[in-house]
Amino acid sequence: MGTVGLDPPSGTRDVLADEVERRERAFSAVRATFARYGYEPLETPAFERLEMLTGKYGDEGEKLIFKILRRGEHEATGEADLALRYDLTVPLARVASRFWGRLPNPYKRYAIGPVWRADRPGRGRFREFYQCDLDQVGSSSPLADAEVVAAVGDALTALGLSGWTFLVNSRRLLAELGTEYGVPAELWGGVLISIDKLDKLDPGAVTAEITARGLDAGTAGKLVDDLSADDAVDRVRARLSASEDGRAALDEVDTLLGLVGPVLPAGGAAFTPRMVRGLDYYSGVIWEVAMPGMTGSIASGGRYDGLLARLGGPEVPACGGSVGIERILSFTEGTGEAGGRLDVAVAVIDRGLAAESFALAAAARQAGLRAGTYLGTSGKIAKQLKWADEQGARWCVVYGRSEHEAGTATVREMATGDQVTLPLGDVPEYLAARIGEGG
Amino acid sequence: MGTVGLDPPSGTRDVLADEVERRERAFSAVRATFARYGYEPLETPAFERLEMLTGKYGDEGEKLIFKILRRGEHEATGEADLALRYDLTVPLARVASRFWGRLPNPYKRYAIGPVWRADRPGRGRFREFYQCDLDQVGSSSPLADAEVVAAVGDALTALGLSGWTFLVNSRRLLAELGTEYGVPAELWGGVLISIDKLDKLDPGAVTAEITARGLDAGTAGKLVDDLSADDAVDRVRARLSASEDGRAALDEVDTLLGLVGPVLPAGGAAFTPRMVRGLDYYSGVIWEVAMPGMTGSIASGGRYDGLLARLGGPEVPACGGSVGIERILSFTEGTGEAGGRLDVAVAVIDRGLAAESFALAAAARQAGLRAGTYLGTSGKIAKQLKWADEQGARWCVVYGRSEHEAGTATVREMATGDQVTLPLGDVPEYLAARIGEGG
Repeated sequence: MGTVGLDPPSGTRDVLADEVERRERAFSAVRATFARYGYEPLETPAFERLEMLTGKYGDEGEKLIFKILRRGEHEATGEADLALRYDLTVPLARVASRFWGRLPNPYKRYAIGPVWRADRPGRGRFREFYQCDLDQVGSSSPLADAEVVAAVGDALTALGLSGWTFLVNSRRLLAELGTEYGVPAELWGGVLISIDKLDKLDPGAVTAEITARGLDAGTAGKLVDDLSADDAVDRVRARLSASEDGRAALDEVDTLLGLVGPVLPAGGAAFTPRMVRGLDYYSGVIWEVAMPGMTGSIASGGRYDGLLARLGGPEVPACGGSVGIERILSFTEGTGEAGGRLDVAVAVIDRGLAAESFALAAAARQAGLRAGTYLGTSGKIAKQLKWADEQGARWCVVYGRSEHEAGTATVREMATGDQVTLPLGDVPEYLAARIGEGG
Repeated sequence: MGTVGLDPPSGTRDVLADEVERRERAFSAVRATFARYGYEPLETPAFERLEMLTGKYGDEGEKLIFKILRRGEHEATGEADLALRYDLTVPLARVASRFWGRLPNPYKRYAIGPVWRADRPGRGRFREFYQCDLDQVGSSSPLADAEVVAAVGDALTALGLSGWTFLVNSRRLLAELGTEYGVPAELWGGVLISIDKLDKLDPGAVTAEITARGLDAGTAGKLVDDLSADDAVDRVRARLSASEDGRAALDEVDTLLGLVGPVLPAGGAAFTPRMVRGLDYYSGVIWEVAMPGMTGSIASGGRYDGLLARLGGPEVPACGGSVGIERILSFTEGTGEAGGRLDVAVAVIDRGLAAESFALAAAARQAGLRAGTYLGTSGKIAKQLKWADEQGARWCVVYGRSEHEAGTATVREMATGDQVTLPLGDVPEYLAARIGEGG
């Protein structure tokens, strides 16, 4: 087996200690934030029945599903009956449907866990990656949308991010916009796909794309001109204010902005008429979070009232959001505060006294310290002090032949080299009394 | 889609909030214990290359591996190239081999995560279940074996278990035993499989099984008689003391017992000559943890010096153990202390004042409390108090029309029904000052 044979599968990672701990701190921050809003955790299996996932993610998404071969006598068929979960939303919808009536209403849940997509691996793109999702099922109140936005905002702050903005829009408003600009209904879906590119392409290119879709050049030009203008918001407001449906659509967005504006940092949310979320299950307000100088979003979400029913569940309203935790982790730095693994490194100089050294480490742990004995083969103190140093230990404790005869142990402060000799039984208490203090 | 269609796949579970939290508390206790011994976390992907798992678990185990179908143009072949991990030991051995020389030596790691086996689902037997593993790679010292035993013992205590015993034996001692009793080497493997059943079958049945394997009745009877006797330990000690190799084998077990005896609870470890671990990769001391009145073990482990080399890695010694966390969780009770989701439930009586109620909840969260607003459609206070009660909230805060006019809010203590009226801005501080106190 060569070196490649020891690598994890393509698109996956072995996560060593410092990175596990950095990621775990981030997840804890998100978890604590969501819990403070009264959301409860949910864990679902890594795989679902294949038919639960098919037909949910579009043609392109469907190709990325990892399928699990049938087992036993059925393995030879080459057929799959299970699949690794592709997101945390479909499992939520399944569980909320399964237990509907027995869950709190609204059911407010968060989920943090890996999902799997057989995407082409690339820089920062993995086949196994974590999602942090927050959703509520059961409420149609704008307070529910606002709560999700506020919770995601708090989570971003807890992750150490600032300067972000929630770009807010609504599906209903977009539909009204199409009507107001006189875009034929059958062209609007395609036009939206083109409008979604306004943050990457220049307006002329987007106009050309829309015209190619069959919209007349005048309407296409006016639409793109208005949406890409600095005063796009004013132009769109003026257009929509002309009709009652348009005003109702604006009101939906304004209600959300009115609720979250006072609780987010200044500039934390802005009506963004050109913002179109790709997923087709959204039904109400939609949002994504932009960071200055970055393309793409670091969080996104919206209202999706029809999704549960589409999965065979009850007709209930729902909304939620997802924090792009892998993206955030990829550009936030490690704190470098990984620190050591042990507080107390107990040397084993004399094999005949190993049991006493072992018991000394146990007593130190009992006193609340992280402690372990040297497990190597060298009896040399220099080598063992090097090990203690590598462990980041604050102290190295030596119980050798002379200490044994005197009934003492020697405690060495690693940073200074200062040593004290204490009665053996006093060592744990001595260390415990000092562990709270600085080096 | 019927009700069955909403169930998770056979042998897997949807884990709702109280159970997620109970499990997470158990994992945290184990994690904290292992960290106190200086072990560091490792996370590996959910799946491995199929060839990494084949040939590792025996014919029966191999049938239980979940295989993942190749993707894209290769899907039609019906072949698998990946497989869900079957345990945490093979991934450890792969990672330790991959990074050997760059990892601390010894590399002391713990891992807590799900594994997948396509076992027939049954009572307490799942196809997706968690393992908690602790291993060190690099040390051949008996202190390493002792450290693993002590850490697993501490973890069991941290999980609230007492009365358990480490049954200790060694592969080397078992080999010597075969020699001393005059069992032909080619029969010994089969004889051990039968001896392993002494905790389930009566001695006569085990003797018959061994005789059927081809061992003469006299030797079989003597061996089973000695191993199942109350003074089995004395009889085996006497036998093994007759030879130098036998004494060396006994010494290995006694060294471990001498190290862990003083640090485990009284009776926490006992030499158990009839204890045979099934897995064939063990090479030195082996152990499993028994609970009175329970068949099977709640933890197990041992030394497996050859395993890394077998996987294509370096020739390095290793030992470890695994806590049977799912078994333990299945018989330890929930604490019932799940408690509420919110400290502060903010009512929304007047839709026109929703923004102020929303901001009030945000201010309470800012002050460190768990807080949320009512998301339902009812404007009735009775209904909203019922919701506050369901949330386990200590307080319900009402900001209605009369409070709005007075610039106040009403804070109701849910347990007593006592109400105070405060200036709106003072509410968060009032609640934060009281949250530490009892109801």
